[in-house]
Parts: sequence; C-alpha cells; structure tokens
Amino acid sequence: MDIIVLEPGTSDVNIRHIIKKLESKGLKTHVSQGTERTIIGVIGDTSKVTEEEEDAIRAMTGVENVVRILKPYKLASRDFKKENSEIKVRNITIGGKKIHVMAGPCAVENKTILFGIAEKVKNAGATILRGGAFKPRTSPYSFQGLGEEGLKYLADARDKFGLAIVTELMDTKEMDVIMKYTDIIQIGARNMQNFKLLLEVGSIDKPVLLKRGLSATIKEWLMSAEYIMSRGNQNVMLCERGIRTFETATRNTLDLSAVPLLKQMTHLPIVVDPSHGVGKRDLVAPMARAAIAAGADALMIEVHTNPEEALSDGEQSLKPDAFTRLMSELKPIAQAIGREI
Amino acid sequence: MDIIVLEPGTSDVNIRHIIKKLESKGLKTHVSQGTERTIIGVIGDTSKVTEEEEDAIRAMTGVENVVRILKPYKLASRDFKKENSEIKVRNITIGGKKIHVMAGPCAVENKTILFGIAEKVKNAGATILRGGAFKPRTSPYSFQGLGEEGLKYLADARDKFGLAIVTELMDTKEMDVIMKYTDIIQIGARNMQNFKLLLEVGSIDKPVLLKRGLSATIKEWLMSAEYIMSRGNQNVMLCERGIRTFETATRNTLDLSAVPLLKQMTHLPIVVDPSHGVGKRDLVAPMARAAIAAGADALMIEVHTNPEEALSDGEQSLKPDAFTRLMSELKPIAQAIGREI
Amino acid sequence: MDIIVLEPGTSDVNIRHIIKKLESKGLKTHVSQGTERTIIGVIGDTSKVTEEEEDAIRAMTGVENVVRILKPYKLASRDFKKENSEIKVRNITIGGKKIHVMAGPCAVENKTILFGIAEKVKNAGATILRGGAFKPRTSPYSFQGLGEEGLKYLADARDKFGLAIVTELMDTKEMDVIMKYTDIIQIGARNMQNFKLLLEVGSIDKPVLLKRGLSATIKEWLMSAEYIMSRGNQNVMLCERGIRTFETATRNTLDLSAVPLLKQMTHLPIVVDPSHGVGKRDLVAPMARAAIAAGADALMIEVHTNPEEALSDGEQSLKPDAFTRLMSELKPIAQAIGREI
Amino acid sequence: MDIIVLEPGTSDVNIRHIIKKLESKGLKTHVSQGTERTIIGVIGDTSKVTEEEEDAIRAMTGVENVVRILKPYKLASRDFKKENSEIKVRNITIGGKKIHVMAGPCAVENKTILFGIAEKVKNAGATILRGGAFKPRTSPYSFQGLGEEGLKYLADARDKFGLAIVTELMDTKEMDVIMKYTDIIQIGARNMQNFKLLLEVGSIDKPVLLKRGLSATIKEWLMSAEYIMSRGNQNVMLCERGIRTFETATRNTLDLSAVPLLKQMTHLPIVVDPSHGVGKRDLVAPMARAAIAAGADALMIEVHTNPEEALSDGEQSLKPDAFTRLMSELKPIAQAIGREI
Repeated sequence: MDIIVLEPGTSDVNIRHIIKKLESKGLKTHVSQGTERTIIGVIGDTSKVTEEEEDAIRAMTGVENVVRILKPYKLASRDFKKENSEIKVRNITIGGKKIHVMAGPCAVENKTILFGIAEKVKNAGATILRGGAFKPRTSPYSFQGLGEEGLKYLADARDKFGLAIVTELMDTKEMDVIMKYTDIIQIGARNMQNFKLLLEVGSIDKPVLLKRGLSATIKEWLMSAEYIMSRGNQNVMLCERGIRTFETATRNTLDLSAVPLLKQMTHLPIVVDPSHGVGKRDLVAPMARAAIAAGADALMIEVHTNPEEALSDGEQSLKPDAFTRLMSELKPIAQAIGREI
Repeated sequence: MDIIVLEPGTSDVNIRHIIKKLESKGLKTHVSQGTERTIIGVIGDTSKVTEEEEDAIRAMTGVENVVRILKPYKLASRDFKKENSEIKVRNITIGGKKIHVMAGPCAVENKTILFGIAEKVKNAGATILRGGAFKPRTSPYSFQGLGEEGLKYLADARDKFGLAIVTELMDTKEMDVIMKYTDIIQIGARNMQNFKLLLEVGSIDKPVLLKRGLSATIKEWLMSAEYIMSRGNQNVMLCERGIRTFETATRNTLDLSAVPLLKQMTHLPIVVDPSHGVGKRDLVAPMARAAIAAGADALMIEVHTNPEEALSDGEQSLKPDAFTRLMSELKPIAQAIGREI
Repeated sequence: MDIIVLEPGTSDVNIRHIIKKLESKGLKTHVSQGTERTIIGVIGDTSKVTEEEEDAIRAMTGVENVVRILKPYKLASRDFKKENSEIKVRNITIGGKKIHVMAGPCAVENKTILFGIAEKVKNAGATILRGGAFKPRTSPYSFQGLGEEGLKYLADARDKFGLAIVTELMDTKEMDVIMKYTDIIQIGARNMQNFKLLLEVGSIDKPVLLKRGLSATIKEWLMSAEYIMSRGNQNVMLCERGIRTFETATRNTLDLSAVPLLKQMTHLPIVVDPSHGVGKRDLVAPMARAAIAAGADALMIEVHTNPEEALSDGEQSLKPDAFTRLMSELKPIAQAIGREI
Repeated sequence: MDIIVLEPGTSDVNIRHIIKKLESKGLKTHVSQGTERTIIGVIGDTSKVTEEEEDAIRAMTGVENVVRILKPYKLASRDFKKENSEIKVRNITIGGKKIHVMAGPCAVENKTILFGIAEKVKNAGATILRGGAFKPRTSPYSFQGLGEEGLKYLADARDKFGLAIVTELMDTKEMDVIMKYTDIIQIGARNMQNFKLLLEVGSIDKPVLLKRGLSATIKEWLMSAEYIMSRGNQNVMLCERGIRTFETATRNTLDLSAVPLLKQMTHLPIVVDPSHGVGKRDLVAPMARAAIAAGADALMIEVHTNPEEALSDGEQSLKPDAFTRLMSELKPIAQAIGREI
C-alpha cells in the first residue's frame, strides 16, 4: 500500500489520469480530499511496483510526493522470515549463540607470514581466517595482492590449522578461481552495489559476507542482500565496517547502531569489522567489545605479526598478543549478554 | 612547529617575503629544497599562532598549504594533563572507576510526572536526574519548556530523592536562573559553538556537560571545551549524542569510536547519550551496553513513565521497567572491563 | 492530513487506542486494511499537530511509522504566499529583478582598512557592506572582533559611501547595541538553531539574513525562518553558505541546488555566500557566477584590500581588483537570465 | 618530500629505527627537534612511496602522524601536464572552447522512443547521445536494460542523426560487446572504485567518462582516473553527478565547486550531470546553467519524450521542449564566460 500526495489545485482530469495509470497496473485506489492536500491511497500488493514505475508516477503532473509503505526488499526482511538465519561454514555456525571471530592479515603476503598469523589467531580462539588475495587499492601503484597463489596459501592454512577461510571477490572474471579455494566469499564495501557481481554470487552455494558500502544506507544494503538472495543464495551475512562521514579523526565512522537496527529488520547474521571501521590499532579493541555488547554475531579483525612490515593496512592491524588479550576481554562481555565466544 | 608547503616555482622574493613575515612573529624558519616542492619548517612555539595568522600565511603568494603539527587546544589535551580528570558533583565523582547514569525525562512536564520518574530511576541505580526546563525545539509551535517552574521541580526532586541534577542552558540571559538550581549545566548540541555561552559557563564554578554538535568534528568539540576551560572552569565533561550523516534510519549516527579516541586525546570524562544518538527506544539498551564496553564514564538516558503522553521525545524514552532491566544488564559489562556502575 | 502505518499484527485494542488518542485532538480517522499493512489516515488540519504530539503517537504500541503530509512551516512557505517577498533595506530592494551584492571584510579591523574596502566595493557596484564586529571563532585565542567600535565604523562607512550595512548578532545580550547601528541583522550558521536568538530577531522590524547551519536540512532552515516570522518579522532572507560533507578539499560544499529548490518552497529571497562556501579565493568567482545562473537574489562576498594581513578569513577574501573583475563578469550572466546587477 | 611527526618522548632508539627504515627505501632524512614535537623531514622522490609503505611507517612505534606533501596521482595532475587535455570523439572535441551537451534517456527502451528522443536533442544542439543498455539498479526486481539490443539501437541512432554515443560499462565481461558499439565508455558512480574495470578501460583506446562516486573525495576520484591513465588510456573525462550528504530534499548534492577546483588540479575535461545531481526535473535547468557558469566543459542531461512512461529516472528527465529551451538559455551564459555551446 502506497500513498500519493497531490499538489494543491491538481485538476480532476489529472487526478483521473493518475488513477487510470495505477489501475492499469492492477492496483485499486482510494482518494481522500483533505483541507490542504488530496491524497490517493493505493491498495493492493504494491511491493511489486518497481522503482521505475514509482519514478514514472512521481513524474506525472500533479504528483507532489509518493510515500511507499512497504519495504522494497522481501527475502532479506524479518517480516518474511521471523527466526534468525544460521549460516553453516564447514563445522561452524554463524548467527547462533556462539559469536565467531574472523581474524588475519589484510592481504596474504607469503606463506610463512600467513601461517605465523593463522597459528596465533587460532590459538587465541578465532575460527575463521581472513586474508585478501585480490586487493582493491586506491592507487594503481600499490600492491594488488598475490592472486591465486595467495588463495592456495589460505587453503593450506585451512588444512593445517582447521580454520574456515574468507577472502574477497572483486570481479566476475575471478569467480572460478575464488570458488576453488574459499569457504566464504567476501564482497567488499566498494562493490556493494556492483550488481553483476551480486547476481553471480547469488547463483552459487557458498556463504557471502556482504560489506556495507562507504555511503550505503541500511535500506540499500539490504537491497544488495536481496539481489543475492533473489538468485537463490540465502546464505548472506552483513558486515558493518564504518561509513563515510565528515569526521576524519577516524578512518570511517563505525555505525554500531546498525547492529540492533538490522536485528529488527532482517534475519541475516551481522558481522562487525572494527579494524576498517576506525583504522587505528588502539581503537580496535574497545570497538570490538562494543560491537559484541551491541549484539553482533561475529567480528572481523585484522591481525599481523609484524604490522610495520605489512604490505597493507599495517596501521590498523593488531599484533597477536593484543589480539589474544582482546579475545579474553570479549568473553565476559559475551557472557553478560547471554552468548559465548 | 608548522610546515609551509610552497607552490612549485615560487620565486626567491616570495620565499623571503614569507620568511620575513614569520620572523616578525618571533618564529625561526628552516627551508628545505626538495626535488618537487620546497617547504619551510617553522621553529618555535607555533601553538601561539592563531587561526587568523595561519589564514593570513595561507593567503600569501606562493603558499600551497600550511600543515600544523601542534594541536590547537591545550588545556583540554592529554599532553597537557596526563591523568584523567575527575569531576565532583555533590557526593559523586564522574570520571573515576564508577560509571554514573543520568536519567529522566526529556522535558520537565509537571511535578507529579517528574517525581514519578525520579523515584524509579533512583531505585534502578541512576545517580543524576536529567530534565529540560528550557527546551530547544525545531518548531516555534512546539512546547518550549516550563522555565523556572521546571527548575524548581528538579531541585525539589533532588532534595527528595538524593539525586544530583543536570539541565540545559540555552541563552546567556538565563544563566542566573539556571545557576540558582542546577548541579550540572548542559550545553546542548545546537549550542556547542555558541561561543558567548561557552565563555559564560567558563566563568562559573559548576560542572558543564558539553554535548557534541550535530556536525562537529572531534577537534572542534575539544576547541569548544577549550573555550570554557580558557576562562577558568576546568570541570567539563564531553557528551557524545550522535552526529548527522547520510543515514536516516536512525535519528543520528552514534559515534562510539569517539569514546576511546577522546580517551587518548583528552583527560576529560566522556558521557554517551544513546537516546538522542539513535532516537528509537528499542535501540537504546544495546547502544548503552556498547557505550560502556567502549569505555564511557557516564550515560545519559531518557526515561518516561508514560512515553505516549510525553511532551517531547516520547519515541526514544525508555519506560522505567526497561530502564531497570538495562541497569542490571550494564553491571556485568562494567565489571568485564574492570569498572562498576 | 497524516498517515499512520501500523506494525503487522497490531491488535484491534491497540488500533482503537490510537484512534481514540487522535480523536481526543479533534482529528478524524480513516482506517484502510491492506494485505500487508493497515494504515490510519488522519483527517483534519494536522499542521497543528506539534512535533511532540507526533512523537507521542510514534511512541504508541503498534505504530510502525508516522508520515506527515503537510509541511511543518507555514508563513515561510510558497503555499502560504505565492509571490516573491521583496525586502526593503534603506533605498534598495532585495528579492526583485535587481541582484544585490554584499561585500566587505570578514571582520572590521580598523576604520582605515574598512573605509578603503568600502570605497572599492562601492565603486565596483556593491550596494551593501558586510563586516563582523562580534566574531564567532572556533578558538578562544583568536581575534573576537572590535565590538561596538566596529559597529560605529560600519555606520560611518554607510554614511560616507551610501552603502547599507549587514553585521552578525551572536547573542541576545548584544541585541541592543547591534540594533543601534545595523541595517540588516545576520544570524550566523552556528546560530541557525539558537532558538532564543531567533525569537528575539522575530520581534524587531529590521531585515534578518539567516545563514544555513553547517548540517541543517532545507526543512530545518525553513523552520528557523518560521521561528522568526512567527514572532512578526516577515523580512527574512536565507543565505546558503555551504554545508559540511565528507569532502575536505573545499572548506564546505556549496549547495547551489538549494537555490532553485528554495525558490519553489518559499517566497523569501535567497542569498549565496560563495566565500565561506568554498573557502578558497580562486574558487569564489566561478561559484559567484554559478550562484547567479542558479537564480540567487543576492551574493555575499568577502573582500579585503590586504588579505595577507587580514585578521580573519584572509584565505578566502578577494582583493578589490578581483572583485571588480567579478562584478563585470556577473553582469552578462544576470542579463542572460533576465535580471540585472 | 614527506613529514613524519613523532610522539612526544619518542626514544632515540625508535627514531633511529624509523630513519633506518626510510633509508632502506633510498630516502634521506632531516631531523628537526622542536620544543614540543620532533619531526623527520623525508627527502627524495617520495611520490614513489606507496600507500602500504606509508601505512607501515604510520604503524611504527613513536610515529604520531605522517604528512604527505606530494599528490598521490601524477598523470592526472596539472603539475604533470599544464595545458588542458582535449578529447576527440568522432568529429567533436571535448575540453576546448566549445561546450558539448550529451543528452538522451536514462535507459534505452526501444528503437522508436530512442530515435524520437535522438532527433529532438540533435535539433536542440546536443552532439552526443546518452542511453543505458546495461543498467545498474538498486532493486533486482527493476528493469535491467536491453543489453546488446540497446547498444544496436544506439549505434543506429548515431548513424541516422550524426551523434556520438556514450553508454555505461558495468562489468569486465561486457567489455567486448560495449567496445563494438560505443564511442565513449561511461564508468558509473557505483563503479568508480571498481579497480578491475578501471584497469580494463585503461588498456583500450576509447575515451572514458568517469563519474564521481557517491562518497568519493576529489582525491580518490583523481586516483581512479590515474588507474585508467596508468595503463595507457589518457582520454579520461571526469563527470560530477552529485555526492551523498545529509540533505534528502534533493537526490544528491551537486558539488559544483568541484568544477573550478578540478580545473586547478587536473588537465582533464570536466562534465556535469545535473539530472542525477538533483533528481528533480524542475531543478535541472538552473543547475545546468550554473554548471556552465562554473566552467564545465560538457553537460550530461536526461531527456525523454514521455517521462511518465520512462522505464527509469522519469522524475528527473526533461521533456524535449524544456531541453530545447534550456539549450537556448545556455548560449548567452557560455558567451558571458568566453565560450560557445
């Protein structure tokens, strides 16, 4: 059900014109003449009214505004599915009582470093290893990742340490090689509205971690999840990683209120990445604690054995000791809200 | 110490002109000729270089950029004072191990309602009663507060329930009447850069709760604290209450990363107001928990016995039962990070 | 007329409760049961429903959303007054065919400099002299303006050069002294929601130039104009001066689309201040030209004879020669859109 | 040349550690001990210091801040190439004295409609036809474009009306088909940081129109241009199309100050798309005029013969009559600034 607000003084001819258009789409209408505005209530399943149809109505003479009552996403919504979705990855479940931690370097650099990090994060309690093989970098002159070689090291680390792995897919052309190795496919913030990529990961059967775009509204983010789900893949988790605001003292502004809000709006599991959210090593631990307290189902944290030599994001990576300390700080907070980690 | 970056090809005459200007202010300079840019290092206590002097230098022919190395605030900075500031209000101390909770209605409406709320929040563990007597409202047609009558009710509630009180000062003309009653003076978000007001509360001896402006950077916020402190009043606490971003699903975006960041930058106590930060009742509790986990020294929470009849901000007010439940949820989180509530 | 959207599954008891509440305010209701949502149409003059009443309804059990159809401002709206408002200031009219230019220094520094600038801008075609006597500065250690002495110099310059004058009022306590001298009272961006100040300038009979707040929506800006007008003073002009966004390459982001949008929404004259909008001298002229092309009724431009020695905003001030050149560039653009300057 | 600011109290050991690291990269250093901070000036061609190396230095013990003096882009910068770049497309030149207008529908819907529009915009003076065959849509349930069929219609329209054509490339997999038909390849706002796509269009010889991302800084935008240029393709034009801010009264906030600012920073031609910038038909003409006055080299404008039936963006499309009127309004403004259209 939608509402169409008319400009004051809209002629009857124009009103009839608008009503006819709506009826041509199988919708019924109810006109209410107020003292200051006339509105047309649109009755029927208006969730099928597409954006372009809405735009077209907005473009009609006499229309001041169109107010949509129904949400434009369906499969992702809590209305559609009441209970929390749980996503199985190898032997673990994301979205249940246990909070999972994905940890590892920003980029896979070589096997020795990766294995060093994997061992440390495993021992500290992480269950998933993160690491980029194809890296989105703002400069063409920066390290762009090891490619398939990096994926192999990740897979080796999985076998050796019993960790599931997550890595980023940047382009539809890399789909096959990524599928060969990873457990979870990450869609990065800059690709949240790369719709071709979303459609492709919608057609596969591996879980997708969908990062929020730098300036994506929560509604747009859920629409991107809907893209994936509309193709069949229901295993989507949403990862808050900071939004772009006027504040430059932190790399981004981590929007933790998105966590409880999403819990109301969607059944999908929520992940928080405090490392990218703040961009400063010293702020990662308090924000990780806050994310748990706010209700996150999982965390994604950058860890590096030697941040000063890291080829990417050294500034925001925790050293293994700090990560281990953080993991022990998170436990009582998880317990305080009836969860475990 | 500051750095002046010169445009490529700046003439020697212009360079000398800039150096002369700096020397006229008692500063020494060191010129470094690079392959692509020449820079002038400015030596001496450049923290005394005012904004307008910086602007003037920026306006000189040949200057591409001025990079300031020192922070423009001093009294508020952690460099200036290493240990945390503790603020005494009646028999309590804000900024110590114990986390304090300020709770109460958005606006004082009448004595019965206020007392009803005060009793409930006191029993739940709040130590400070909040309530507005002069209300900033975006519409001139909205309820603007009870004025002095409201202040009297607050003072009565303090006497009856043993709570300290905090209320907002909106205009220098209301200074005297506010001073007669309140324990803590609140400067609202819209007045964070009302510099005349800041100077006035700088000259008194009551603690000031300085809310962050809707689009204030952390640096500007600390500069506003500096305004107050520069007049003598060192008892300033900073209250994060959400910033304005592109996201409209929440009333504001609560910037919790400001909490640990401010802990590094300043010695002043940090308060978080999740009620205004999110603007939706259901999100207040998770964000209050997150604020504690992030390291806040105090919380400010709107509570109303009958939100549906509240004259202001009913949508984001907790009912007493929910507030009591929240207080008990906060305890184990405070303990988990070595504090108490 | 407003729309109340109910949560799915809201009980009849709760619906009746909401309807009763609305009827208690003299409003009629019309319930429409859709397939996915039930909505309550509210009939009657809902423009009298205040913010707090709206909040209270939003706070009721079962209410998912309240959609307001009518604008919350009235006197400022184009609906209320169809023809453009023209504001008389001494012998000039703002809001008519002729575009006026307000020019002068950021701050009044001394009589000689002010007179030097006034003569130049007068000769170049400006009709109003700008200059601050009370200056809002982000640092307490910066030059805060000459106070009444500065106002006297402005008044002297008015007498000598035949220019109207505009200067900023920062605090209700300075109302009397400002009123003694100025022709137009400026409310600065940081005070756009200093509601006490708005009410005071609403009670006088001098024109008010209301700058847009750094993060004020157009609706909030019009509400601030409504504050002034609700007290009787209809002579309000709105001044766009840039909003705060994520972009830091310019001081602010000058929102020129606000100009034609406001022309639709309100009858009040629109002023554009490109100097603060961009904060860089070289960008002022192109943005001044663009403002005229977009439909501005007046411009406000910072001019200084010696920007390198200016006590404030030197970086963005034009030198008199550049200002004269700009004035001659603006003429054909004004003509191109059927206006004059 | 870069500047490294050290934390107060950094030990000599740590300083030597940092210097050694810099020297290992072939850079020289100069340490200046100030009263409040010690800084290390880095001498040599630091433009080769990559992001990750900068991050790594920032991650070292004792480093408070790293200030980069040189711009991270080179080929795109005005420093590198002083004179304006002119881009040849068939028989026209973008970036010269003549301002070009790209006009057409948002999406190609069918041949009849496209030809109807093409004829109108050609007659009104447009030289380039725009139209999407692959459409990025926020909803998976919306019209996604005609694909290759749409490209064919565009090519037919080019042949029939003598217009160059521009259309969007969304995915590397569609490169070949797009290359077969189009004259200019558009990279949409949502793909501005789709780095794989940028690298691919960098390897071809057709001009690229690079739209600014919704929350992209000007620096990031130039870095994306650099991506393309680093692969060899120097024919890049930048298209401002509005950024995302807190203001929702317009679809986006058109940042016209980007136009003169980019003219200083880069030699590349600047295009403005007021249709997406504001999202409301009535505001397109004033903003198009303003864009010309601000110095744009070209405009991109949505035109549709029947916006009410358009399958996309009807709300912001001009009808042919309005477009013809606009073209005649633009002429005198172009002349006023010494250009033609």
